Amino acid sequence: MAGRHFLQIPGPTPVPDRLQRAMHRQMEDHRSSAFPAFARRILSRLPQVVHQTKGEAFVFPAPGSAMWEAALVNTVNPGARLLAPRFGQFSHLFIQTARNLGYRVDVLEEPWGEAADPARIEAALAADTAHEIQGVLLVHNETATGVTCDVAAVRAAMDRAKHPALLLVDGVSSIASLDFRFDDWRVDCAITGSQKGFMLPAGLGILYMSETALARVEGCTMPRAYFDLKAMRANNAQGYFPSTPALSLLYGLDEALTMLLDEGMDNVAARHKRLATGVRAAVKAWGLRECAKRPEIASNSLTAIVVPEGVDARTVIDIAFNRYDIALGSGLSEVAGKVFRIGHLGDMNALTLAGALAGVEMALVDAGIQITLGSGVGAALQQWRMPS
Amino acid sequence: MAGRHFLQIPGPTPVPDRLQRAMHRQMEDHRSSAFPAFARRILSRLPQVVHQTKGEAFVFPAPGSAMWEAALVNTVNPGARLLAPRFGQFSHLFIQTARNLGYRVDVLEEPWGEAADPARIEAALAADTAHEIQGVLLVHNETATGVTCDVAAVRAAMDRAKHPALLLVDGVSSIASLDFRFDDWRVDCAITGSQKGFMLPAGLGILYMSETALARVEGCTMPRAYFDLKAMRANNAQGYFPSTPALSLLYGLDEALTMLLDEGMDNVAARHKRLATGVRAAVKAWGLRECAKRPEIASNSLTAIVVPEGVDARTVIDIAFNRYDIALGSGLSEVAGKVFRIGHLGDMNALTLAGALAGVEMALVDAGIQITLGSGVGAALQQWRMPS
Amino acid sequence: MAGRHFLQIPGPTPVPDRLQRAMHRQMEDHRSSAFPAFARRILSRLPQVVHQTKGEAFVFPAPGSAMWEAALVNTVNPGARLLAPRFGQFSHLFIQTARNLGYRVDVLEEPWGEAADPARIEAALAADTAHEIQGVLLVHNETATGVTCDVAAVRAAMDRAKHPALLLVDGVSSIASLDFRFDDWRVDCAITGSQKGFMLPAGLGILYMSETALARVEGCTMPRAYFDLKAMRANNAQGYFPSTPALSLLYGLDEALTMLLDEGMDNVAARHKRLATGVRAAVKAWGLRECAKRPEIASNSLTAIVVPEGVDARTVIDIAFNRYDIALGSGLSEVAGKVFRIGHLGDMNALTLAGALAGVEMALVDAGIQITLGSGVGAALQQWRMPS
Amino acid sequence: MAGRHFLQIPGPTPVPDRLQRAMHRQMEDHRSSAFPAFARRILSRLPQVVHQTKGEAFVFPAPGSAMWEAALVNTVNPGARLLAPRFGQFSHLFIQTARNLGYRVDVLEEPWGEAADPARIEAALAADTAHEIQGVLLVHNETATGVTCDVAAVRAAMDRAKHPALLLVDGVSSIASLDFRFDDWRVDCAITGSQKGFMLPAGLGILYMSETALARVEGCTMPRAYFDLKAMRANNAQGYFPSTPALSLLYGLDEALTMLLDEGMDNVAARHKRLATGVRAAVKAWGLRECAKRPEIASNSLTAIVVPEGVDARTVIDIAFNRYDIALGSGLSEVAGKVFRIGHLGDMNALTLAGALAGVEMALVDAGIQITLGSGVGAALQQWRMPS
Repeated sequence: MAGRHFLQIPGPTPVPDRLQRAMHRQMEDHRSSAFPAFARRILSRLPQVVHQTKGEAFVFPAPGSAMWEAALVNTVNPGARLLAPRFGQFSHLFIQTARNLGYRVDVLEEPWGEAADPARIEAALAADTAHEIQGVLLVHNETATGVTCDVAAVRAAMDRAKHPALLLVDGVSSIASLDFRFDDWRVDCAITGSQKGFMLPAGLGILYMSETALARVEGCTMPRAYFDLKAMRANNAQGYFPSTPALSLLYGLDEALTMLLDEGMDNVAARHKRLATGVRAAVKAWGLRECAKRPEIASNSLTAIVVPEGVDARTVIDIAFNRYDIALGSGLSEVAGKVFRIGHLGDMNALTLAGALAGVEMALVDAGIQITLGSGVGAALQQWRMPS
Repeated sequence: MAGRHFLQIPGPTPVPDRLQRAMHRQMEDHRSSAFPAFARRILSRLPQVVHQTKGEAFVFPAPGSAMWEAALVNTVNPGARLLAPRFGQFSHLFIQTARNLGYRVDVLEEPWGEAADPARIEAALAADTAHEIQGVLLVHNETATGVTCDVAAVRAAMDRAKHPALLLVDGVSSIASLDFRFDDWRVDCAITGSQKGFMLPAGLGILYMSETALARVEGCTMPRAYFDLKAMRANNAQGYFPSTPALSLLYGLDEALTMLLDEGMDNVAARHKRLATGVRAAVKAWGLRECAKRPEIASNSLTAIVVPEGVDARTVIDIAFNRYDIALGSGLSEVAGKVFRIGHLGDMNALTLAGALAGVEMALVDAGIQITLGSGVGAALQQWRMPS
Repeated sequence: MAGRHFLQIPGPTPVPDRLQRAMHRQMEDHRSSAFPAFARRILSRLPQVVHQTKGEAFVFPAPGSAMWEAALVNTVNPGARLLAPRFGQFSHLFIQTARNLGYRVDVLEEPWGEAADPARIEAALAADTAHEIQGVLLVHNETATGVTCDVAAVRAAMDRAKHPALLLVDGVSSIASLDFRFDDWRVDCAITGSQKGFMLPAGLGILYMSETALARVEGCTMPRAYFDLKAMRANNAQGYFPSTPALSLLYGLDEALTMLLDEGMDNVAARHKRLATGVRAAVKAWGLRECAKRPEIASNSLTAIVVPEGVDARTVIDIAFNRYDIALGSGLSEVAGKVFRIGHLGDMNALTLAGALAGVEMALVDAGIQITLGSGVGAALQQWRMPS
Repeated sequence: MAGRHFLQIPGPTPVPDRLQRAMHRQMEDHRSSAFPAFARRILSRLPQVVHQTKGEAFVFPAPGSAMWEAALVNTVNPGARLLAPRFGQFSHLFIQTARNLGYRVDVLEEPWGEAADPARIEAALAADTAHEIQGVLLVHNETATGVTCDVAAVRAAMDRAKHPALLLVDGVSSIASLDFRFDDWRVDCAITGSQKGFMLPAGLGILYMSETALARVEGCTMPRAYFDLKAMRANNAQGYFPSTPALSLLYGLDEALTMLLDEGMDNVAARHKRLATGVRAAVKAWGLRECAKRPEIASNSLTAIVVPEGVDARTVIDIAFNRYDIALGSGLSEVAGKVFRIGHLGDMNALTLAGALAGVEMALVDAGIQITLGSGVGAALQQWRMPS
């Protein structure tokens, strides 16, 4: 098809030309005397993305989701007990990963479309008087339902319960897009991947560790090899990596950090909020409803939209893909067929998103859903206008 | 600014990633034994773009407008008389080029927004009983006003006048976008550049010559050097070029030809028509009028839109550029400040154009023009929907 | 510095322009209906690189060395006993990885510069009458010393011992460069990374599994998450991946497979042999000796060269890097300071290698080692000439 | 073929990755308010490359050789008389271009392999007591024979003859590689292209004009259109170009200027001298002779080498190209078959050139010329070593 494809899934996100250029480089010797300056430029700037001033950040050649394992195996001993709310596919997979590694996970089930409930977390921790629970697994932004949790509130709940469990946060679809306050929220481990807010291809897993979490690494008895932070820390301290780093992606990450920090993380978050506001106005104008059950938990990085009864959301997605050259996210697991998702994170602006909404409108009408063409776009433009 | 810039001027047009990749190559020896196969693949396929089966096509490292000179100096002797309708900035510049080269040009003035008038051309040629007029200079698609002329009708007028003048056609903003019938219309010289329908950066001028035009080259007494076709033809016949060719652009042209011919020139023209229909529906929905004075001459490669009295079109363009990251074409010369232009040629699709229309809507409203946000996009989507 | 950097370490290897172009692509939806055709084109061709006709090949976003873990945790139960010769840094790290994961490894120490000894392996296996040993860990090509083992001979030794242990082979610096006969040698797990013979940036780990090895996956009790092949196999069967794949690298891998298979794996191996022969002739002409203790075990993908007593090999490497813009591999661990290494694998040809040898010659002389400038290059050219 | 092609013709020269990246950009509106800052960054830095502080520099989408025409038609009236030494193919073509444009050229024939003779130029000008001669056409570096003329000496000769003719210098294979002193030598027009010292693909012609030359533009009566500097100057003054500029090449030129000026033009010239010294040492070691008849006129940007009687230089070139993947320049016109040429200008370093010399050595031996393999490389390395 002629013209530009619209990649509007919630990751991978469109890679800006500038980052493509940065990655289009010849390789170099990752053991050379010139290499550490480059490695340090990345490692020293990663924390700024999440307002982290203490602890360390790590980069692995791996998908973001592998960082679930990296966070766990370095801080939680074999067979330990963990606590986790489940309210979507990614919170489910985080739990599944922990169980596959042999941990016991107490699950707090929430309806899909809801967020983690701090009160229930508080109660569960308070009930654990023996402090068996080693960690709370929290997905900050549930990519399956377009729901953002209140991490500060979860931390406050943990404080109220006076519980020493670590706070392990999945920030895959929030970090580098939404406001993320690593220090303020006293997060212990935060994880993400390169293909969302960092605007890169997938292939890099990023792990943020607090000083508390780092203190566990040395003594942690979990058998581990690739994800072991001991060798990583020793190498990073010299400006190197323990195995051959994924250089092309690191070249991109170096430039992505420059782009993000030049824009300013507050501006990045504000831009995502502004774009999301337009999308939500469009959904309302169409007369549809969001998967997120309450406006205050609706995500600024993606919107999951419920199709009317009798329509299969996959039909909308297929029409959009095949006729209008736009990729939308499908509903996963529990909401398969009921939901489609529009990603609006990463290197995104109003006009691209207007084009995407236009594509959604045509696909909705083609799929037999009664909406007025232009209504959603018009409602979004009301939000996106910038009168002087 | 984050996100993708919308380049909606009528050239240069967005370069597809595929062509960018094709141009990102190391250089090679343009005198090697391997080179002719490459050169011939380009030269042999260029004619298919304009449905040319006789004559030859040439490529120069030069802008498209330099081909005005290339066409003239190879076919028209010094000081000769020419005939040219003027109905916009590019027909004006074609005339100016001819005059700068010492030719005498009889100008048929038409209002800007109108097309060339075959009847007036016929009359002028009929009056030239001595057959002094050596060529008719015709801009197929006037990029300044968004007007397309009827080349077939002009050729028919020339036939009725039984006049032997050559027909020299500027196809800069039509060739490779709009239907162009070199053989059927018996065009003698047609010119274009790489940065419009060919979807490449500017830097290549393309010249199509009929057998009649080619027959003039050898005997033409116009002093000339760079644009002389004698050396070009001799070199091309061996698969080479007389001077170092602009290789990166040729790599792009080779791939652009594959893209265009794979899509099929009829499909390319149909796509441009479909996209233009949507843009015109948007203009109507906004309550604005086109610069083109009649629907049947409205161009399918760009639309020039007249702003209401009291508004400077440059304000709309500035707002669009600075607030919404979209480049629109400005009004030139006579229509400066009165008109802005939306290019919809080249590697373009409905969603990109929907985004562009959204940007125009916000800029119009910001500039104080009363339109309903979403109205133009909605009207366009009505045209662009593809119900199964 | 002006001009092209010479990257002559044994990986990452120079990425050919063609692969850089292939990776310079916009992302796409890895869950789309169009994706499986792409994924299958890769997965179905990977086996041809190692002449594998049974079993399966897998790709992970990970470094090659992480595949040590992937191979082990899917096939060997916790705490099991393994057997491994150690004769260089990478055989050491393979062992270390196994131990970190809780396995017990019987190590057969060999001098660095020697290869694995099939007779000792046979003896060790024969002594294990209880068949406690679950696997033999073998580095095919020891990148630290430039030594290639005879995998067929090791397999024959295992056969003679009638031992059922799996044969797990590290082919990081051999696969896609040297002849690798997965089926013929009855290898069970073979691993490699993208940054050597595949000519790509690091970031993809590749794992080949025999039917025997695959049969172990389901029942293997090793706790594992990211590297678990159960989810990978289920997804691959549908043309997908369980987590977001490293798309840019996969685009490169797809094209690298085309390059390799078009050249033909036998031709690839022959080219590496021919280039290595020239390098070895140069070493001889310089009057230096190789780290590999016997000619028949000298590697065709890299050459490790011992510097004379009294000279620190790191000086040679530093001079080469800083004055002549060439990166050489340093000696690791036991041979640090005694050895420098020239990589000649991947997208390599005689003239590039001649330039590299020229750089080595200048660095050697600058470091005070008495050699005749041009002597090594001349000796290599004798090998590389192709008289018709 | 695997591995990197060696492009060792005297232009196009290898494009560094950094410039390829710079050119791999999306297009932009060349009439936007943001454009002039970019255009001015180029136009204001071009003069520094030739140490020009007065007059102006211009860039055309055109090959370098088209600048012959651009220089002439803006400064010399129709039919005027010119003086030009001819000592190679490019001085011949410069003369031919002038004649094609209707000028009368007095030719001073010199043997190929010799440089322009200042004494003969002085004599010819002194004899022109009527000052009919309007310009002296001088090729600074004759790319066909590898000979560099002494421009300062030619200027001194003109001064001694007290002749007002303009000095028009072809610097195609010298500017941005060899020392070029526009002001000091009082050059009036200097021309070059993008594909030599500027390290870019061909497609940009560059023209430097002195104040004296610029003063002629307005009144020059030569009919001209595309190459007319009046419109160019008017547009440049505003930061624009009269026709659509070749943006991708300009993006490259902007970056090339940064590379060159960061290295420093004196360092660039010194590097080219150093590399050339090595090549000449190799030629001597092979026992061959250069086309340049005297060492003091041997070019630092390329070396033309005479093959022994009985051998066709084209055989050497063919073998080099087909067996060793290196492109060498062939002998042109008078020296066809007698000479092959090695380009060593642009983004070049010692190791690349060592590889190239190695390729030449194998091709020479294969062609039956008796040289010792390694002898030329060794001799060059003697020159290129950088003992601390």
